[in-house]
Formats: sequence, C-alpha cells, structure tokens
Amino acid sequence: MTGDHQNNTDQESVRTSPDMEAQKYAASIVLPDADVVFRNIKNAKRFAIDIGGSLTKIAYYSTVSHRKVLYNPEKDGTCSSMDGGNYQYESSETERLHFVKFETKYIENCLDFIGDHLVSSKDSVVGKSIKATGGGAYKYAELIQQKLGLLVEKEDEIGCLIKGCNFLLRNITDEQFAYHRHSEPEYHFITVEHNIFPYLLVNIGSGVSIMKVESDDKYERIGGTSMGGGTFWGLGSLLTEARGFDELLQLASEGDHRNVDLLVKDIYGGDYSALGLTGEIIASSFGKAMHNSHTKADGSKDFSEADIARSLLFTVSNDIGQLASLYALLHGLKKVYFGGYFLRNHPLSMHTISFAVNYWSRGDVQALFLRHEGYLGAIGAFLRGAEECDPEKYSWGENYAGSSGLQSPLPRPQGAGWPGGTTIDQLEIDRCDQQLTFFPLLANPEEYIPDAVDLTKDKEARDYWLSCFEGSLSSFVNRAISSQPNTDDSVERANKFRDKYIQRLHNLKNHPFAYGSLTVRSLLDMREHCLNEFDFPDPYLQQKKLENENALKLLNDHLNYLDELEHDKRQEVLVRGVLAGNVFDWGAKEVVKLMEDGLGFKEAADKLQARPWLHDDLDAWIARLQGPTHQCAAVFIDNSGCDVVLGIIPFARELLIRGTRVVLCANSKPALNDVTAEELTMLMKQVAAVCPIINKNLETGVLSIRESGQASPCLDLSRLPRSLVEDLRNWNCDLVVVEGMGRAVHTNLAVKLTCDSLKLAVIKNRWLAQRLGGDMFSVMCKYEAGNDIEVISSPVAPECGS
Amino acid sequence: MTGDHQNNTDQESVRTSPDMEAQKYAASIVLPDADVVFRNIKNAKRFAIDIGGSLTKIAYYSTVSHRKVLYNPEKDGTCSSMDGGNYQYESSETERLHFVKFETKYIENCLDFIGDHLVSSKDSVVGKSIKATGGGAYKYAELIQQKLGLLVEKEDEIGCLIKGCNFLLRNITDEQFAYHRHSEPEYHFITVEHNIFPYLLVNIGSGVSIMKVESDDKYERIGGTSMGGGTFWGLGSLLTEARGFDELLQLASEGDHRNVDLLVKDIYGGDYSALGLTGEIIASSFGKAMHNSHTKADGSKDFSEADIARSLLFTVSNDIGQLASLYALLHGLKKVYFGGYFLRNHPLSMHTISFAVNYWSRGDVQALFLRHEGYLGAIGAFLRGAEECDPEKYSWGENYAGSSGLQSPLPRPQGAGWPGGTTIDQLEIDRCDQQLTFFPLLANPEEYIPDAVDLTKDKEARDYWLSCFEGSLSSFVNRAISSQPNTDDSVERANKFRDKYIQRLHNLKNHPFAYGSLTVRSLLDMREHCLNEFDFPDPYLQQKKLENENALKLLNDHLNYLDELEHDKRQEVLVRGVLAGNVFDWGAKEVVKLMEDGLGFKEAADKLQARPWLHDDLDAWIARLQGPTHQCAAVFIDNSGCDVVLGIIPFARELLIRGTRVVLCANSKPALNDVTAEELTMLMKQVAAVCPIINKNLETGVLSIRESGQASPCLDLSRLPRSLVEDLRNWNCDLVVVEGMGRAVHTNLAVKLTCDSLKLAVIKNRWLAQRLGGDMFSVMCKYEAGNDIEVISSPVAPECGS
Repeated sequence: MTGDHQNNTDQESVRTSPDMEAQKYAASIVLPDADVVFRNIKNAKRFAIDIGGSLTKIAYYSTVSHRKVLYNPEKDGTCSSMDGGNYQYESSETERLHFVKFETKYIENCLDFIGDHLVSSKDSVVGKSIKATGGGAYKYAELIQQKLGLLVEKEDEIGCLIKGCNFLLRNITDEQFAYHRHSEPEYHFITVEHNIFPYLLVNIGSGVSIMKVESDDKYERIGGTSMGGGTFWGLGSLLTEARGFDELLQLASEGDHRNVDLLVKDIYGGDYSALGLTGEIIASSFGKAMHNSHTKADGSKDFSEADIARSLLFTVSNDIGQLASLYALLHGLKKVYFGGYFLRNHPLSMHTISFAVNYWSRGDVQALFLRHEGYLGAIGAFLRGAEECDPEKYSWGENYAGSSGLQSPLPRPQGAGWPGGTTIDQLEIDRCDQQLTFFPLLANPEEYIPDAVDLTKDKEARDYWLSCFEGSLSSFVNRAISSQPNTDDSVERANKFRDKYIQRLHNLKNHPFAYGSLTVRSLLDMREHCLNEFDFPDPYLQQKKLENENALKLLNDHLNYLDELEHDKRQEVLVRGVLAGNVFDWGAKEVVKLMEDGLGFKEAADKLQARPWLHDDLDAWIARLQGPTHQCAAVFIDNSGCDVVLGIIPFARELLIRGTRVVLCANSKPALNDVTAEELTMLMKQVAAVCPIINKNLETGVLSIRESGQASPCLDLSRLPRSLVEDLRNWNCDLVVVEGMGRAVHTNLAVKLTCDSLKLAVIKNRWLAQRLGGDMFSVMCKYEAGNDIEVISSPVAPECGS
Repeated sequence: MTGDHQNNTDQESVRTSPDMEAQKYAASIVLPDADVVFRNIKNAKRFAIDIGGSLTKIAYYSTVSHRKVLYNPEKDGTCSSMDGGNYQYESSETERLHFVKFETKYIENCLDFIGDHLVSSKDSVVGKSIKATGGGAYKYAELIQQKLGLLVEKEDEIGCLIKGCNFLLRNITDEQFAYHRHSEPEYHFITVEHNIFPYLLVNIGSGVSIMKVESDDKYERIGGTSMGGGTFWGLGSLLTEARGFDELLQLASEGDHRNVDLLVKDIYGGDYSALGLTGEIIASSFGKAMHNSHTKADGSKDFSEADIARSLLFTVSNDIGQLASLYALLHGLKKVYFGGYFLRNHPLSMHTISFAVNYWSRGDVQALFLRHEGYLGAIGAFLRGAEECDPEKYSWGENYAGSSGLQSPLPRPQGAGWPGGTTIDQLEIDRCDQQLTFFPLLANPEEYIPDAVDLTKDKEARDYWLSCFEGSLSSFVNRAISSQPNTDDSVERANKFRDKYIQRLHNLKNHPFAYGSLTVRSLLDMREHCLNEFDFPDPYLQQKKLENENALKLLNDHLNYLDELEHDKRQEVLVRGVLAGNVFDWGAKEVVKLMEDGLGFKEAADKLQARPWLHDDLDAWIARLQGPTHQCAAVFIDNSGCDVVLGIIPFARELLIRGTRVVLCANSKPALNDVTAEELTMLMKQVAAVCPIINKNLETGVLSIRESGQASPCLDLSRLPRSLVEDLRNWNCDLVVVEGMGRAVHTNLAVKLTCDSLKLAVIKNRWLAQRLGGDMFSVMCKYEAGNDIEVISSPVAPECGS
C-alpha cells in the first residue's frame, strides 16, 4: 500500500524519492503494523471504498476505547474508589472515522490485509456490506466481495463527492483554503461557514465534472470536460519518458513552458495592449511545436520533456480554471472548490487554476481547495445510510493525532515492508456526542474566526509558540506519567506521546499550514489529541480535585466577606476574584512553578497588575450593573480550584441575586486543569451545601451547568452544542462572560457579540503580555455593550438542509 | 503561392495530393497568369494584407473596365450611332475588391509578383501605403516595405476581424451557415439579417480569441484560450509523423478516437444515467494513453497516429465549443460565429464544435460559420480608411464568376508553375452604386428569404434546374456572339464564358452549397456574372430595342381600346395585358422558339391558361379597386417589349388615373431581356409622346422610374436602393406589384408584405408549371390585402451602426 501523491510535492518542486524507481516494480507488498495504518481495523463496524483510476480511499468506522475516570454521583461527586492514588476507570468509547488512501494498484494487498484483520469481527460489520463508489467500484466489485465477504453496494459517484464535501465543510476546521503562490503565507484558510451553500464543485479526475450544489439534496452536474487528469497523464505518457503521474508532475515543475508555448510577445513582439494582453501571456499552448523540426542549429532540442510537461500542466489547468469560472459566473456562484486526483493539492496546479479563475472572472470568483479533497468520495459513500453519522445528530472534529497534514506525509513505517518511497496519508475524524452549531449572538457569524492570531501569517509569533510548546513538553510528559503512577506502560506511552507531538511541532515549523491556520488553539488541541491517543485522558484529574477541595474550604468565608461590601465595591471585588482565580493555570508555563510551590488565592490577587489594567473596562461594567437586570448570562469558565470556586461561583451568585438566569458552560472533555461540565456538576453539589442561594437556584434550574462542547482550553463559538444554543436563545441570553487566556485572549478577544459581553483574563505569558503592551499578570477586562455593536451580516438562521 | 487548405477537405475525408510532398520543398515558385490569380492587380489602387502564422490573405481594390452601351438622351433614348449593327460603347468601371489567400511561406514570392505587376501603377496606389494586420504584420513589415515600396500601416487584428465580419454579414448573401453533419443538406444557410448584432465571434488561430460584438464600434475581447490551432498542430507535430496542418487533419479524419480516449462506458461499463451521460461520451481525452505501455499482447499498438490526431482534434474543438457556448450564455447571445485557420470550414471540426455548442448550451446557442471566414481580417484591414468602400454609401455583392466557392477550389492553373497540389481560393466582391437595404414593408424582415425553393434541400429540383441551365447554355453562347457581330474575339470570349459557367454548374452538382443556398436566382445571377466577366454586358440589347419599338407601335390603339371598356372589364383586360406581355421572356427556354418565330401580343394572350388560373385572385383584386385609392404603388417590372409597353404601362396608367402615385422599379443593370431603368427612362419619353397622361405624370413626378438595385431576373427585397426605400416610405407606399416568373414565382411568391400586393406571372417552364400543379402558361395572379397580414417581427428600423 502506498500513500498519497500529494505528499510528494513541496511548493515549487516535487521531491522525487530515490526509491521511486523500485516502487514501480513492487507489485506485491507487505502491509505495515495495523497500529500505524488501518488503525483500529479490527473494530471496524462499517466500510466504504472509493476506487479511482489512480488512488483508492478506504473509509471505516470504529470505536476507540479510552479510559475515563468513573465518577460516583452517590458519593457527592468524588471520584470512586481511589486506591493508592489510582482512580477507577470506566471504558469510554470514541466513535471515529478512519480514512486511508493508497494507490489503486495495491488494492488487492490492501483488501487481503483488511480481510485478515477483520476475521474476528467480520460478522459484526453492519449489514455485512461495503459502500463503494468511484469508477473502480464497477471494476473491482467482485474482488471486494471475494476478499472481504462483504456485499458491495454501489453508490453514485457525484452524489458521494458532494455529500463528502458538505461533511468536510461543515465539520472540519479550516478545511477550505485559497492558494496564493506568491504571497506569504501561500495558504489562506477559510473558517467553517455558517451556510456552506451554494458552491461549485469541480472534480478533476481522469475527466472533469462540474457540479452546482445548492443544498444537501439539490445539486446538478452542469458541466464538465474530457480534458482532465487523464489527458495530462495520457499526453504526458506519450510525450515524455515520465513513468506515472508523480514523475510527470516532477518534470513539469522543472520545465519552462515558454520554450514550447507561443507567447503573445512571440507574435506581436511585446504586449498586445489594445486587448490588454501582456507579452508574457500564452497565446498558443504548444504553438512553438507547430513545425516539424524542433531542433536548433546546434542540434539541440528547442524544448525539453520538462518544458512539454509544464506546458501540458498549464494547458489543462488553465482550461479547467476558465471553464469553472465561467460556470460560476453563469450561475452566480462565488465559491468554486477544486478537487480530484489531478490536483491532489499540488502547488503548481493550484496556482495555475487559481490564476485562471481570478483572471477570467476578473476577481469575482474564488478558487478554493480542500485539505482533504482526496477523501470526498469515500466520506460521502460512507455516510450513505450510516446512521451513526447522522449529521442531524452529531458533529465531528479532525483528530490531529491521527491525521497526516497537508503536504505533510506521516513518516514511513519502519521495518514493515512498506513499499519504498511511499508515504501514508490518512485522516481520522472523531464524533462529538452532539451536534454543534454557531453561537446565535455573534455579530458577524459568516466571518467568525475564534483565534486572535494566525500563526501561519505571523512568523515571529509562530516561532515563539512552537518553541514555547516544545519547551514545556517535558513537564507535560512528567505530569502524564505521574497521573498514572501504578500503570506499567505509562512511561512508554508518555514517551510515545512526546515523540508524536514533537514530530508534529517540527513538521509545523516547515508546514505551518498542515492542519489549517496554525494557532495557539490548534497547538493546544493537538497536544490534547496526542495525550488522548496514548491513553492519558486526564493528567490533571488529581490536581483539579485537590484544588477544588482546597478552594471549597475558603468559599463560605469569601461569600460572607463579599456580602458585606457595598454594591459597587462588591462588583469590583467579584471581578478581581475571577481574575485572581484565573492566575491558577497549569497550562501557563511561567506560573506552574508558583503553583507547585503552593500559591494562595490572596497571593494570586496580589500578583495582578495594578489598575488601570492593560484593558480596563471595569468601571463601564459596574456602571452597566446599575442598569436593567440581564435576563440570562452564559458564563464560559476556565480552571478548576480557586478559579471556579472563588472566582466564578461568587460572580455567578451575584448575577443570580440580581435576578439573572446563569448558565455555567464548562468543557465537555478534559483539557489541562480546566474544569469539565461533569466535574462542575459534582462540585456544585458541594457548593450548594455551602451556599443556600446556589442551592436554591440549582434546584429551580435558574442556575444550570452545561457542556460547552469544547475539549480545549480555548473556545470556538461556532461549535457549541445545539441544545445549549437553543436554550440560550429561548432564555433570551443577553450577557456572555468569557474567562481565561485561552477563551478570551487567544480566542474571541476581538469577536463582537450582539449582546453585552465581558471578557476576563490574566495574561500569564510574558512574551504575549509584552506583545500586547503589558507585562506578566496584565489584566484583560473587556466589556462591550451589545447595543453598540454593529451587526454586519444577517442574523444567524439555521442553514437549509441541516 | 498556394491556395487555401479548406479546399483540400471534402466532408469526411481530406484529400491529400500526391504532390503535397513536393510542395513542402517548393520554397521558390513561379506565379501563374495574372488573369487567373491576382486578377486586375495592375489596376490595384489600395492594398491590405492579413498575415497569419499559416495563411496570408491579400486584399486589393481595383476597377474593372466593361463595355457599356452609350445612350444618347438627346436622340430620344436611342442608342447612339449604330454602325452595321454594332453599338457604340463607353467604358464602364466596376469597383471590385479582390481577395487571395496563400500559405504564408510563399509570401516573398507573392510580394515579388505583386511588385512586378504593380510597377506601372505603383505611384497610383492610394496613400502609397498598405494596411497590414495579423501576427505576421509585425514580422514581415520590413519585407513588405522593401518589396512593394509601400508604407506598412499596422491595424489592430481583432478590430479588423470584426469589421470584416460585419461587412460580410451585411453584404454577402448566405454568408453564414449552420453545419449539421448528419442532415441533408449539411449546410444550412442563413439569409442576410436586418440587424446582424449582437453576436459572439470566436477566432481560432494559433490561439483563440472570443469577442462580443454589439455594434460596429462596440466590441470587446471577453475571453480566449491558449488551446487553439497551434495546440492541435503543435501537439500533432510532436505525436505524429504528419507534416503540416492538412496532413494532420487528414490523419484525424482516418482515426478512431475511441482507441485513445477513455469513454464513459470504459469506466462505468455503460451509460452513467444518473448524470445523463451516455456510454459513448468521452470521459477523458487521451485517458487510454495514461499508462506507459501502449502496446497490445501481440506487439501491435493500442492506438494509431490517426487515432491520436482525431482525439486531438476532438479535444481542441470540444473545448472551444464549450467555452464559446458558456460565453454566449453568460452574455445572453444566441449566435456564435467561428472562424480562423484551425477551422477553415473543415467539416469534422465544424461538426465537433457545433455538437459541443449545442450540447453545452442545451440548444440555446447556435454555432455558425462563414463561407469566407478566412478573409475577415483582410477585409477589415482593407476597409480601414477606404472611403471608396464607405458602408454608409455602398453595398457590395459577391461576384460568382470571380470567387471560388465553399469546399470548391478553382482548378489549378495550367502550366504556370503553380506549386503542386495547391489550389486557389479567391473572393471577388463588386461594389453596387448605392447602398442597398431592406424593403420596409416586409411583414417579417428577419426571416425574409427571397427564394421559393432552396435547391440545396430539393434534389429533384436541383437536378432539373442544373440540367436545364446547362441545356440552354448554347443558345446563350450564340446570343452573346451575335450581340457583338463585328468583334474579333467574341467567339473566343463566348467559349470562355461557356467553359466557366459549365465548370460552375458541374461543381454545383457536387457542392450545391458552394455559394450559399443554391437557387434558380443564384444560377441566373451566376450566368450574368460570367457573361459580364467575358465582356458580354448586354447580349439582348438589340432584341430589347427591337421589341420595344414594335410594341410602341401598338400602344396608342391599345390604350384607346382600354379606355372604352367599363371599369371592371378594363381591370381584367389590364391584368391580362400584363400577363400576355409576360409571355415574352428570352430566359424561358420553351418560349424562345415562339418568339424567334415572331410571337404577337394577341397570340401571346391566347396562350394564357383559361380561368380559373392556377392562382386566381383577379376578382379580389378588382374588388379591391372599388375601395379606397392606393396612395403609392411600387411596380417591379420584368421584360422589354410587349411586357413593359403593352402590359405594365397601361396598368400603371390606370393607377395614375385613379390617383395613385406610381414608381416603376426596373433593373439597375441588364439581365436577359429585362428592361433596365436606363432603358425605361428612354422608352418612357417615347411613351409620353403617345400618351398625354403618362407625359403629364412624368413631368409632375407622380410617375417615376427608379432603379430596383437588381442586376438579375429575380428580385431580392432585402437589397433595394436606400433612396428608393426612403421615398417609398415617405410616399406611404401601400401597393406593391411584382411581375414575372423570376420576381414573383422563383422569388417572393410566399413573401408577405404589410401593404396590398399583387404578384403576376406566367409560368413558362413546363416542369415548374407541373410541379405547381398546372401546365405551360399557367397564370399566377396572387393578390393579398396588407391588412390581412400578420406582422410577426418588429417593423423595420435602421440597424444601429449603419
């Protein structure tokens, strides 16, 4: 089995492996360890396959078991049975989609491999069938049936492509991008859109199909051309010695098309100004080959095979780009997605197509590409009839630990007989427990980008954060090991975690675009994914518990103290309390030492910058509180311990006293020492025992605890649970409080809401603090009144079809 | 110098000359007799040249001297000084545009030839300059200047193409056609349109330019592609042994693209019904060449060079067709004209492009081609600043004697060193003395077709008329000789006339589409053109004079007789008089014998079919005359002698008496024994001497004699002199009388007018009479009231830009 060609390309040039020659003759291969490719194949419950002329993509669905701490609600939310520091775990299943891409010529080996590993569970494959699409679905149906014993159900190719495309556009962060060859960065990612329709999908396989997509169910093939990847490859095979598509691309990247193409200046001696054609524009592809003798006076050729290959690439790409932009203009579409094996995200091809689309549409149409374009058909085929993927019920997220990135092949498996020179391209997508959607109070949902800084565009910041994450890695490894003291393999797994994450970080240095826009959030998420991958589901579990218990002890006194303060002073102390609590952050390298030495709540408060703070809207916030009572506040909380107990809870309690409904939104899954919704639920029982106001409001439901849908120290307001969103809408949510560096500085700092918002955080990173014009422990207290916010785009409405 | 490649093509196959091989090395050639190509070069007064990468087109303007009978108005319109049966002639100059096409590689020879023949008149070349366009205008500017001593003035290529296209569409009958490969006939000509705009012009040279043309001055290059003729030729040169474009086309016509292209059925095993793609559709051009080994088990190749050439042709044509139809749809255009050297009216290419346009536009856009597409640039360049061609002043007409037809090369000049295998393509266009335009009372001008029968579509009629014209040719030859009894070379010239016309007739048997829709009118016109070509400007001159004189003798008695009849009877006798006069037709083979034996007016009346006539609206006409007086009648008259003197003049006199203004419209130039406007003017002076009513109305201008703009026995109501049209409009013309087989049966019989119309003719051709359901001397008397006519399209308005 071999990987994806796209991984052999690197900007201008295509890297040719010295093993490529050998590979061509490797008809029979030994497949590598199932832990590396075809991961979890033994648990596979449903299959789909997309067999193209060149590449085959297999999709399968499996569940991944992870340990999860077992809570015992009967015991006041304490973790059940702690033996010598070890928690009792239950098994937690993550639903995961796996996609693997390989050259179609290895299909038989791959089917054998799957068949062998499925033996034990073949009967458990749902419906005992496999969905198949792509041209090869017809050709290989019998082989599949024979090898896997599964019934082949053929699915319409175009329908699958579109279903897959819709799935990726809705679920995968930064799935789509524009490619600007001569800008830095070259990749311009576009955030998940609230409404993905309408768009044009141009699939460039051997031939080209052009589809107009208006909704999940409404699409049409409106055009196409027989001049596609097959033409490039076919003519290239006839005209050059290149063997196969990749060698041809390699040739193309080395050639100079001007030797074989007739340029405008070759005809007119310069520009053809009257028509606005510059001299460098190609007037006639292959025009210089028109006459039979193609040799110079000295016997050398006028042009090389590389020149021919490049001209061929330009001819095909330009034409497709023009056709696509004309169809887009004709149908009033602004977005055109290009995919298919011809393109496979090859920079030169993407550049030519982007140039052509921009040129012929005069900038009115945007050429877009998909990070996972190769998987559209496989995803679509898989989703056909897969209820466990019902997009009405679930959202999905890319698993950064299990997916190879754009232009970033996974390292070749060692000693596994993997065919020489090939690399692995795979994609893993985890199911969220619920459907996620946009927060309804975003002022401008269509342009919502959570992240404050795009590290892809900011080299200085990128260099800092990559080295920062690498620098703090060893303490995370240690934390992971110490969280499972009595487990035999924890050191081995922790080292694997370290190796994987280091590999990711190093790759991102060279390919910052590998997983979409590089951000502090994506680096944080990736670390969590890698930790999970090696079965460290919650390294801070014990720490969180300890800090919660310690903070709880202080709560009663603190509430009494607050209740004695006059109104305005109390509001200030409440905000200061949230900020002081926010100092306790195990994700902040520079405060970890303080916390390890035993930081107290009052000491933390003393660390805070003196007023005026770096951003200081405290007076405006207090003034606002003299106005009408908010109906409902959504509070996105951060850390365990002092942060939640002594900061957030008193703050929330004050809102409740004022008559505001309060929804505490906590992470769905663990991340650092952030409190999870499950933990918070347990914790609040203990708080309720201390505070009658909390107790009463919990009982009446005026105070509620909800999952935020996040598994990250950051907050993506485009991916909140639909049930939460609906409740907030019903309760007329008119105040949003976001707390913490991850949620209110790394993300969402500049994001405008249509309701009142308060963003509170302490900057616990010296570099970032200085960059923002402050110093360690600078305070971010940003209040914005909703009625001052200009709503740019139309209010959020459910998109059609979902 | 060599001819046009288009002439090497013949439907499915391209004929390859055995001399083609030799031709390639014939860098130096001897040019043929200047009488055959570059005719009249010595009189050339203005030049233009369009130098393409492949073909060069030279345009020049000259005057052709013809004899014209000298009338002496002082002597009552008799021809001056008749000596022994010979008339005195004056020299009449016809303004003519010549276009010659040859391969660019022979440009030096051609320039030398022109230079040599121009010697005597070089100084007379207007402005001592030559307009030049095409890519080669830049490359060869110096050579032209050196060889011809003329200053090269470069003209914008696209502007010239469009100017040339507009000129052809406005002036040349049946210039445009749709091509339907699988229908009979394949060529569907479209008549000259009243408003030619807007349209899309797709010029397929080495590259492709797509222009939107909205008026003479408003056009824009809206698209293009580098994949054009150069790509076909260039890739063809690299992939096959074919030398040059024509050999490549020849190869393409022999190949089977299915051997090299991947069809839908090759992928899906059949149709891809869900997308509406049939199995035979090309999914991927050259898709079967994708893998390196292209040989079968037995060592033979999977596909041949011919297969490759055909696939290449399809790839390029399909793509251009799709692009063009998308641009047309995008800009709301229905008509797309294709031209340029790639196409050169090659049937297979036209078919592919037509198919693609129809397929991709779903029938909403029509692919059209031009008979003279090769000359667009040369015509346009020529017209730049050529006042003698001012389209505001003059119209033009194709000279069928001097132009080679579509797919109809002129025979190779003998013994003139013409390079082997090449043929001549040339076009000659004669200037009309005035600007011609549409008759304003056509009910449906946009769909006006003069001709009753399209012989291209009607094989039986075509066979009959071609043999009929051939059969009567000898009597025309004799008539021509006897019209110039004292001229030494009249026999030689008459034989040349015969040879040329016979050659044309024979060519039309095989290529009935050569000059547009074949009609009786075009056969008649072609005979006149050929007669003129060999200096027989008016073979019936003496006959017409004699018959006029004889008829005049009877006029007075006839008028007296008429005046004594009661109203209705008189109307009937007047109509019968026109019909009896119409029997006298030297163009009608079967009555020539009667006339030669001395046919009298009363005898002619006796020949007429008894009533009810074949078409008999006489009663309706007489009834109409009891209604309101017509304001103005346009009477399109036919023959000299009894026809005009005893038929038309009494009929017109009756209208005058009723109070109707009468405009007698007679031919501008001689054709058969039809009376010309000049002759009629003379004749009317004699008539005025006989009849005081005529005399008075001539003096007051209530009766006027006008040129009809015609030089044919037929009548093209889309080409009437603008001054006549304007006067008829001003005078509120409300009656049109059309007389004669040529004007009222072969043409215009079915044409609806918005005013009253009376069509009168006697069918003097037995075959035609029987076809119409009658017999010899059947009578056509068709009256239609204008207010019964449904006006289908909008009334005629001057088109923009003209």
